[in-house]
Amino acid sequence: MYTLHASPGSSAFAPHIALEEIGLPYKTVMMSAGHPETKSVEFRQINPKGRIPVLIAEGFLLTEAPAILLHLGLTNPAAGLMGSDTESIVRAVEWTNWLSGTVHAVAVRMVWKTDYFLPDASTHGPLIERGMEHLLSAFALVEDKLQDRQYALGDTYSVVDPYLLVFFRWGNRMCIDMQGKYPTWTAHARRLEARDAVQRTITQEGISLWE
Amino acid sequence: MYTLHASPGSSAFAPHIALEEIGLPYKTVMMSAGHPETKSVEFRQINPKGRIPVLIAEGFLLTEAPAILLHLGLTNPAAGLMGSDTESIVRAVEWTNWLSGTVHAVAVRMVWKTDYFLPDASTHGPLIERGMEHLLSAFALVEDKLQDRQYALGDTYSVVDPYLLVFFRWGNRMCIDMQGKYPTWTAHARRLEARDAVQRTITQEGISLWE
Ligand SMILES: N[C@@H](CCC(=O)N[C@@H](CS)C(=O)NCC(=O)O)C(=O)O
Ligand SMILES: N[C@@H](CCC(=O)N[C@@H](CS)C(=O)NCC(=O)O)C(=O)O
Repeated sequence: MYTLHASPGSSAFAPHIALEEIGLPYKTVMMSAGHPETKSVEFRQINPKGRIPVLIAEGFLLTEAPAILLHLGLTNPAAGLMGSDTESIVRAVEWTNWLSGTVHAVAVRMVWKTDYFLPDASTHGPLIERGMEHLLSAFALVEDKLQDRQYALGDTYSVVDPYLLVFFRWGNRMCIDMQGKYPTWTAHARRLEARDAVQRTITQEGISLWE
Repeated sequence: MYTLHASPGSSAFAPHIALEEIGLPYKTVMMSAGHPETKSVEFRQINPKGRIPVLIAEGFLLTEAPAILLHLGLTNPAAGLMGSDTESIVRAVEWTNWLSGTVHAVAVRMVWKTDYFLPDASTHGPLIERGMEHLLSAFALVEDKLQDRQYALGDTYSVVDPYLLVFFRWGNRMCIDMQGKYPTWTAHARRLEARDAVQRTITQEGISLWE
């Protein structure tokens, strides 16, 4: 039985959706919004990096959203969350590594967790502005990459798609005009929104995709 | 036949080592140190993200060091660069995603490419200082994780190990006392240095691990 350490609307939303797609019993440990619990001594014993998502199973603890998504996809082939061929695996990693690093750890964090970069809040302005520039250029690339396909990897749904949805939702929360600027990505988000597993996850986390 | 876009001592050093381990014919396109060519119009047509490494093969173009390393490992099983079981794959991604994101894209970049965060050089001091703090805490975690093993994934060498060597070398170049602070990681680096493929790659790139 899987346990997922998560918090409403965090990057753990993606593996949470994957777990709903899989349909096996699992439990979530939900932190509060803003996830201050990641800094606790108890949680550091689970993940010394102090970050969610963390996936735990019998004798097994895995960190990093891309690794968790890949694990859930590969070990549950019946759920159809990705192919097991090398091409599917490496394309999934190409997408998720970029989303987790360049987009999340750098651009999103510059805007939302600016004190990770500079402790002095009076100096945050230019860093937030620049983070937003990087974010918009990354988002434009997502829009571009989705032009010729229904899903991140092509014609079939995969664990990469819920991860994209995390960033689409964050864009809305940052008041970026996602629907106006990124119509293809918006269609992708609506395609995901129509899935039962996505609906159930949204309800469980008590979040909205659009605001 | 593979083509690797690289530059001496960049993160492309890791897939370059992997190609030497594999022993098939390949070529490298070497940019100058500091890789200003990544910003050229020509290179943006190859990788719109403007980054190396890029791996090209017949009808195939792949970006992101973790994806390239995984691809080289999985499609060349005879080279023994990683297992093809799910556990090896996801543990490799857990390591490389963290190294590529938290360590490279955030901490190393804060120290070495500070203008990615703040264009005004007169404000770089505190950002570099904080980047160095993040880097040292990441490096301490590497040292810790290597305690009970010869290689990143356990008893056997994998594509993760040359990627760790990239960061070990960068630490030396930043004048961090790698040998004094991280004896276990230093032993790991020496273990890698003893490999013919690593020696050949060092010679080809014209670099040193230690200064
Ligand atoms: N590289 C990790 C980073 C995950 C991450 O930064 N998660 C955020 C939540 S979305 C977190 O735990 N932040 C802790 C904090 O800000 O204190 C991954 O991709 O899984
Ligand atoms: N997420 C990418 C990032 C690669 C990256 O940042 N590479 C550096 C060289 S080590 C680069 O190309 N920098 C271009 C620049 O600084 O202009 C990966 O892990 O492969």
